[in-house]
Amino acid sequence: MEKYLNNIEKANKKIYMLAKEHLDNLAKPIGSLGELEEISARLCSIYSSLKINIEKKCIIVLASDNGIFEEGVASTPQEVTAIQSINISKNKTGVGVLAKHFNINLMVCDLGINADINYDGIINKKIRKSTRNFLKEDAMTKDELIKAINIGIELVEKAIKQGNKLFGLGEMGIANTTTSSAVLACLLNLNEDDIENVVGLGAGLSEEAYKKKVQVIKDGIKNRNIDKSNVLDIVQKVGGYDIAGMIGVYIACSYYKMPIVVDGFISIVASLCAIKLNKNIKDYIFLSHQSMEKGYKLACDELNLPSYLNLKMRLGEGSGCPLMFSIIDASISIFNEMATFEEANISKDYLKNIPKI
Amino acid sequence: MEKYLNNIEKANKKIYMLAKEHLDNLAKPIGSLGELEEISARLCSIYSSLKINIEKKCIIVLASDNGIFEEGVASTPQEVTAIQSINISKNKTGVGVLAKHFNINLMVCDLGINADINYDGIINKKIRKSTRNFLKEDAMTKDELIKAINIGIELVEKAIKQGNKLFGLGEMGIANTTTSSAVLACLLNLNEDDIENVVGLGAGLSEEAYKKKVQVIKDGIKNRNIDKSNVLDIVQKVGGYDIAGMIGVYIACSYYKMPIVVDGFISIVASLCAIKLNKNIKDYIFLSHQSMEKGYKLACDELNLPSYLNLKMRLGEGSGCPLMFSIIDASISIFNEMATFEEANISKDYLKNIPKI
Repeated sequence: MEKYLNNIEKANKKIYMLAKEHLDNLAKPIGSLGELEEISARLCSIYSSLKINIEKKCIIVLASDNGIFEEGVASTPQEVTAIQSINISKNKTGVGVLAKHFNINLMVCDLGINADINYDGIINKKIRKSTRNFLKEDAMTKDELIKAINIGIELVEKAIKQGNKLFGLGEMGIANTTTSSAVLACLLNLNEDDIENVVGLGAGLSEEAYKKKVQVIKDGIKNRNIDKSNVLDIVQKVGGYDIAGMIGVYIACSYYKMPIVVDGFISIVASLCAIKLNKNIKDYIFLSHQSMEKGYKLACDELNLPSYLNLKMRLGEGSGCPLMFSIIDASISIFNEMATFEEANISKDYLKNIPKI
Repeated sequence: MEKYLNNIEKANKKIYMLAKEHLDNLAKPIGSLGELEEISARLCSIYSSLKINIEKKCIIVLASDNGIFEEGVASTPQEVTAIQSINISKNKTGVGVLAKHFNINLMVCDLGINADINYDGIINKKIRKSTRNFLKEDAMTKDELIKAINIGIELVEKAIKQGNKLFGLGEMGIANTTTSSAVLACLLNLNEDDIENVVGLGAGLSEEAYKKKVQVIKDGIKNRNIDKSNVLDIVQKVGGYDIAGMIGVYIACSYYKMPIVVDGFISIVASLCAIKLNKNIKDYIFLSHQSMEKGYKLACDELNLPSYLNLKMRLGEGSGCPLMFSIIDASISIFNEMATFEEANISKDYLKNIPKI
C-alpha cells in the first residue's frame, strides 16, 4: 500500500489545457457542451494523451458483511449480502443488468461475506466472515484493514491486465450505510447532535429503527476512541472491509492513472477517505449520480466534484456507474469526432445565394 | 392537424400500475432505482404494453431562419443555420456525433433556411426563406403556421414508417432563442419587467447585445397585438417555423403513442405550446438535460416534469436527446432483465453455513 500511496502523481495539467484548446476549436459556442467537454478534458489529463480510446471497462464490486448488523440497524436479512453478490455476478441485479446492457465487465469480490459460498463467479478474498460489531469492539484489526486495502489494489492490477481502462466501484453488504455514516461522521468531525445529518434510511427503515441506527452510530463512535485526524484509524474502528477495499481501488486507479467512477453513498465516503490519504487521488475521480441516501449530499459538498445524473437512485451495488460510463463514452465521441470550425465551413460549398445581411 | 389534435388519448394508466407492480417485485428495495423505474413504467403506459422493445430511434431536427435576426439579437452569422444543418446530417456536430455514437437516426428538415441548399441529406420542406422580423410584422402567416405544424406531423409519420419508436427533437436556427423567449414570455403572460427572466445569452452575447435582445423581445411582443390565451396566435406572431414544426411533432408522437424527448430551450417552449393545445400530450413527453439557457428553468417549472441530466449544456441541435435515449434504454433493460425476488432467491442454493442471527 505505501509504495502506491506515495507515488500518485497529479493528472497532467498541460494535456488538460491542450484538450480544452481542441474543444474550443470545435464548431459550437465555446463551452456549450458543458460537462461533456470538461469530462473529456479530464480524461485526457488522466491518460496524459489527446487520443482517448476506452474499449474495456470494469466495475469492481466489493462484498462484505458488517458486525454492526446484529444491532438491528438494517431492514434486510444478512444472507442477502451473499445472495445478491451471486446475482450481481450473474447479471441479474441492478448493476448486473446495467453492466451487461452497456457491455461492462464486472469483478465481484468477497472480502467478508458471512457465509460459505460455493460459486466461482465471485473472487474469494474473504478476510473474515464479517467485520466485528463496532458498538462493542473495533470493526477490524489494523492487519485486516491493510489486507483489505491491498486486495483493492490487487483487483485493479488484475483488471488492468485484462485491458480495462475505466473503472467503477460498487458494493454489496447489508448494514454498510451504517458503517459509511459512521466513517463520514468521523471524517467530518461532526458533533454528536449533527451525526443524524449523515445517517439515512439505507434500504428502508421504520422511524423507530432509524432512531436506533442513529443512536448505534453515536454510541459506536463514542465507544471506539477514534483519532479522527487519522483516516485509517477511523475505517479500522467503525468502517467495513468494503470501504477499506474501495480505498485500495482508489489508490491503485490513481497510481496507474485510470479514471474511477463513484456510485453512491458507500463509494463516495471511501473516496473522501482515499483523498485524505493523498489529495492527488481526487484528479482521478468522477461522480455519477446524486444518490438519495441522506449523507450523500454532505459527502458530495466535501468532495466538491459535480454529479451528473439526477435519477433519485439509492440502490448501491455500483448501479450508477454504467450510466456514467455511457456519459463518459459520449464525451469521448464529442472530443474525437466533432468537426472543427475549419472542417465545418467546408459545408459552405453546398450553399448557393446566401444573403448578405 | 385538427384530426390529430382532437384524437390524442392519455397514456394507459392501468398498464402503468401493472408496470409498477412488476418493478416492485424486482429484487431491490422498493423504488430504489428511482427515475429508472418511473421512466420504464411511463414507457409501458405510452406503448400500452408490458413488453418494451425499442430498436430504432430518431431525432427530428428542424432547421429554419428567423427574421428577427436582422435586429442584431444573435452573435452568430445567419449562414451558420445552413452550414450546421448540413453538418448535423453528416454527423459532424454535437447532436450529429452523439447520434452516430448511440446509433440513432437523424432526420434533418429545412423549414425555412435562408439559403439555397444543394445537398440531399436534408429534407427540403422550405416554407419560405426565413420567417419575418416580428418587431415589424407577424413572423408568419396563419397558413404558414399550419403548414409548419403539418410538416412536423408528416415527419413523424415518415419516421414511424421507417420503424422508429422513440423520438427526440432538435433544431438549428440562428436567433431561435429570441423567438423562443418571446413565445415563452407570452405563454407565461409575463409583465414587461419580468420578460428578462426568460431571455438568455443564446450562443453568447455581450452585455449590450443582451440588453438589445431583451428590448427587441419586449417591443416585438408589444407591437404584435397578441392574444396571449391563444397559442397559435403567439407562435404565428413571434415564433419560428422550427417551433411550429415541433408542435406538430409533439402532436403526432402523442397521436401515435410514441415517447418524445425534449432537448433544450426551444423544444421545451414548443412542448408547452403543444400541451396548451391538448393537455394529454404531456403523457408522451420526457425531458433530458437541464439546459443552461436562462429561460429553461422557468419553462421546466411550468411543464412540471423532471430533467435527468446535469451537464451544463446549452448547445441545442437536439444534443441532449442521445444521452437521454441511453438512460431510457437502461431503464428498459432494468424492466426486462432484472431478477424478481423469487428468481433472486435461487442463488441461495450456492450457500452453505448461513449463520442465523
